[in-house]
Amino acid sequence: MNFVSDNLAGASAPVMQAMAAANDGFAAGYGNDAWTKRVEALFAELFEREVAVFLVTTGTAANSLALASLVQPWGAVLCHHEAHVAADECGAPEFFTGGAKIVGLPGDGCKLVPDVVADQLARMRAGAVHQVQPQLLSITQATECGLVYTPAEIAALKQAILPRGLKLHMDGARFANAVAALGCTPAEITWKAGVDVLSFGGTKNGAFAAEAVIVFDPADAVEMPWRRKRAGHTLSKGRLIGAQFEGLLANRHWLCLLYTSRCV
Amino acid sequence: MNFVSDNLAGASAPVMQAMAAANDGFAAGYGNDAWTKRVEALFAELFEREVAVFLVTTGTAANSLALASLVQPWGAVLCHHEAHVAADECGAPEFFTGGAKIVGLPGDGCKLVPDVVADQLARMRAGAVHQVQPQLLSITQATECGLVYTPAEIAALKQAILPRGLKLHMDGARFANAVAALGCTPAEITWKAGVDVLSFGGTKNGAFAAEAVIVFDPADAVEMPWRRKRAGHTLSKGRLIGAQFEGLLANRHWLCLLYTSRCV
Amino acid sequence: MNFVSDNLAGASAPVMQAMAAANDGFAAGYGNDAWTKRVEALFAELFEREVAVFLVTTGTAANSLALASLVQPWGAVLCHHEAHVAADECGAPEFFTGGAKIVGLPGDGCKLVPDVVADQLARMRAGAVHQVQPQLLSITQATECGLVYTPAEIAALKQAILPRGLKLHMDGARFANAVAALGCTPAEITWKAGVDVLSFGGTKNGAFAAEAVIVFDPADAVEMPWRRKRAGHTLSKGRLIGAQFEGLLANRHWLCLLYTSRCV
Amino acid sequence: MNFVSDNLAGASAPVMQAMAAANDGFAAGYGNDAWTKRVEALFAELFEREVAVFLVTTGTAANSLALASLVQPWGAVLCHHEAHVAADECGAPEFFTGGAKIVGLPGDGCKLVPDVVADQLARMRAGAVHQVQPQLLSITQATECGLVYTPAEIAALKQAILPRGLKLHMDGARFANAVAALGCTPAEITWKAGVDVLSFGGTKNGAFAAEAVIVFDPADAVEMPWRRKRAGHTLSKGRLIGAQFEGLLANRHWLCLLYTSRCV
Repeated sequence: MNFVSDNLAGASAPVMQAMAAANDGFAAGYGNDAWTKRVEALFAELFEREVAVFLVTTGTAANSLALASLVQPWGAVLCHHEAHVAADECGAPEFFTGGAKIVGLPGDGCKLVPDVVADQLARMRAGAVHQVQPQLLSITQATECGLVYTPAEIAALKQAILPRGLKLHMDGARFANAVAALGCTPAEITWKAGVDVLSFGGTKNGAFAAEAVIVFDPADAVEMPWRRKRAGHTLSKGRLIGAQFEGLLANRHWLCLLYTSRCV
Repeated sequence: MNFVSDNLAGASAPVMQAMAAANDGFAAGYGNDAWTKRVEALFAELFEREVAVFLVTTGTAANSLALASLVQPWGAVLCHHEAHVAADECGAPEFFTGGAKIVGLPGDGCKLVPDVVADQLARMRAGAVHQVQPQLLSITQATECGLVYTPAEIAALKQAILPRGLKLHMDGARFANAVAALGCTPAEITWKAGVDVLSFGGTKNGAFAAEAVIVFDPADAVEMPWRRKRAGHTLSKGRLIGAQFEGLLANRHWLCLLYTSRCV
Repeated sequence: MNFVSDNLAGASAPVMQAMAAANDGFAAGYGNDAWTKRVEALFAELFEREVAVFLVTTGTAANSLALASLVQPWGAVLCHHEAHVAADECGAPEFFTGGAKIVGLPGDGCKLVPDVVADQLARMRAGAVHQVQPQLLSITQATECGLVYTPAEIAALKQAILPRGLKLHMDGARFANAVAALGCTPAEITWKAGVDVLSFGGTKNGAFAAEAVIVFDPADAVEMPWRRKRAGHTLSKGRLIGAQFEGLLANRHWLCLLYTSRCV
Repeated sequence: MNFVSDNLAGASAPVMQAMAAANDGFAAGYGNDAWTKRVEALFAELFEREVAVFLVTTGTAANSLALASLVQPWGAVLCHHEAHVAADECGAPEFFTGGAKIVGLPGDGCKLVPDVVADQLARMRAGAVHQVQPQLLSITQATECGLVYTPAEIAALKQAILPRGLKLHMDGARFANAVAALGCTPAEITWKAGVDVLSFGGTKNGAFAAEAVIVFDPADAVEMPWRRKRAGHTLSKGRLIGAQFEGLLANRHWLCLLYTSRCV
């Protein structure tokens, strides 16, 4: 029973303990604290490479910041028409990007296939000044309907967008579920398959309010500190989020919450 | 010793206990929970009137949402040039308002006086389409330099802006300090003196990450739910913030943190 | 032969003569000139009522300003998915509105029918903070495929949106063609049928660069002067546009360009 | 007598003749016409180098597009506090940039000196995430008070901003006056002295409505086509503006309007 993948439940015990521990004493503000630094190292270890990590408190913020960093105001984001970024964030991606267009595509189980993406791209004229320009594909892992993308499926989507130079974003609000269901490593279903930036969800998986934007190419991350601060998402006591992730990531707890039999 | 009025410290014990208590069991999401409802009632009691309350996690978000709800994109916000909204939020007010202008004014101790405000208003032509239109005055209580505004001083500022129809916002990141220093009730230094909207700070006063936008006229609050959601500041587990405020407001704990002798 | 309804052709002779005449001597700037005033009176006469008129140089500006005045950043605009505002303006409506969502709907001949609009509205939850809120329906008269809406068809669309309070915008880039084809008065296919704001096109019908936003309820027009200026669309020599419209509207020249047999 | 440098006057005879000539026959739309191409060549000749040219109808549009192409939403523009971009465009730069901050500086005769710029820069912390980042200096040539910057003065300002990497924009609404007064070539007071982008004014100097953004480094121009279209400033009958500039630039007419004795 996966009752913790739920907004209604509270935080798991290790998360609460980590927060309580982080609360003792003093720490540097605005993410320059030891908890945040450790979490960055934990994510690097988890993804088997250097990554740039930006912690925020909501999935809407994580997704919108990720999109805004990679899409210009006259850009378009392709995604499933039931994707969270298209349907459930009250236009937050449009707000953060300065008015980019979210183009919803069809697909069974909220899942996109390369042909649909390629067909849409063929209908968008490259370089035409009268139309928004496709700049990013966003997929949800696991999808809003609970399906998962295999590494091969992700790579095929990347192939479909490469000729037009789109970036690939993964909304991983339920990333833990996908990793558990696929039996793959986090690296295999992200950067190794072509994902450029990942919204790594904690809130639906045992945290109180903790989401991480994981950027695999540092060049894609240069705008993030300014965009996050400017959106009011740079917490003064940033260790609040750091501690939650430390609680989640330590001892593979974030996966234990799903499949206790696989726990260390 | 007021060591908790500091971003570097953790949360106070009652706040942590309230959070831990809120963590047990289940609750409705997105602010529709019992903690948030109780906090709304506590704020109404504290301010001796009905208020609309919007909880967020950072002062930048609270200030920017307050400003955006009351200022149009072609509006201007008058404030001290060292005010947090002018100098320390990386242009967040401009982002949230859609590009309004923040007009910094001089004043000793980061404090504004009516004459300076009136002079500035006299230089801004009412109705002129070529210039932004002054729509809001924002003051900080206590100021960035630690000074406070008395009820009479606030009322005098309100008089200075009334002829031009500006709203009055109070950045209360250190509101507790002001209440304690002035020996006034929260009502006396807000709506009774002419304040339309208040950013009530918790983070610098014992909370982990908890700020409240307090709107005194419900008509000024109609846009807030959409603006907050769209900015990624509507937490799914909203009771996280609610519980912090419940811990702060219960038994006048938020004031005890400053002056233990006055505690119940 | 309707060769003037074309971006490729130049301006018609009466338009050129009016511009040349306006060029002599001096005039007040920024739309406070006699030509603009006369055009406002001509539009009032044409539409058989008081109207607020805002002259600009492009259809994209006219449409985007109209939409921005009636839709909030978290609003949604319903329109045909091939409508100019959805497909050919490079996201200008998103830019001017501060990130509202353009929702494209299907329909033969680029024409919308009430059932499709009502179905879409039924899928958008009123008051739900997680979704953008439908606030405006935009139809094109004549449509991008050359079809026209009869007064009854427009009224039926208005009926479909009334329960949810949406405004009705008409993109009249080819309004002259519609008036000529329908044999209706301009009033009959606009405000009498429920249209709140009209983009009245001149550029595709004999003008050099002249479009008018016609607002039927003055309350809907209060933001327009600021929005227009702020977008760089308030021409210092505004009589340039005024004169073009004077040339077009005098002696029903704008309709003569289409059907010479009906000219006075 | 320089009566044409005025919004109140009409267009000069050569401009009107050029517009009338352009009106005959047909032409490609949206700036892909022979007039626009010829004007691009004329500007290249005038500035003695390749330039990217973007024609629009208002100075507010020219300035705002120039700024938006070079400044990020969290950037700051330094300029004189009475500069047109700061004081007379109703926040258009904020709108086009997505909320950048316009920082007004003092200076006699609306003119900036390097020390004032350097002092301001010293007060803005490089890389600090809590503050907007200075990214562009905008000067007006001739200034709003009628003073001019010599090539040496412009170069000295460029030296003041180079260490922080700011770009240099020149608002040339009255560029003709400056060229005439200084007796310098257009190149000497722009790119040769360090100007990156110029708003070349036509409207106050004999045109009806014609302004050109002149970008000296093509890399700075890549966003412009999209930004211009998206703002509604890409005229379908772009030859309208092209013809005005052809009338102005041919035979040095734009300078003749000021000093007839220097005419060819």
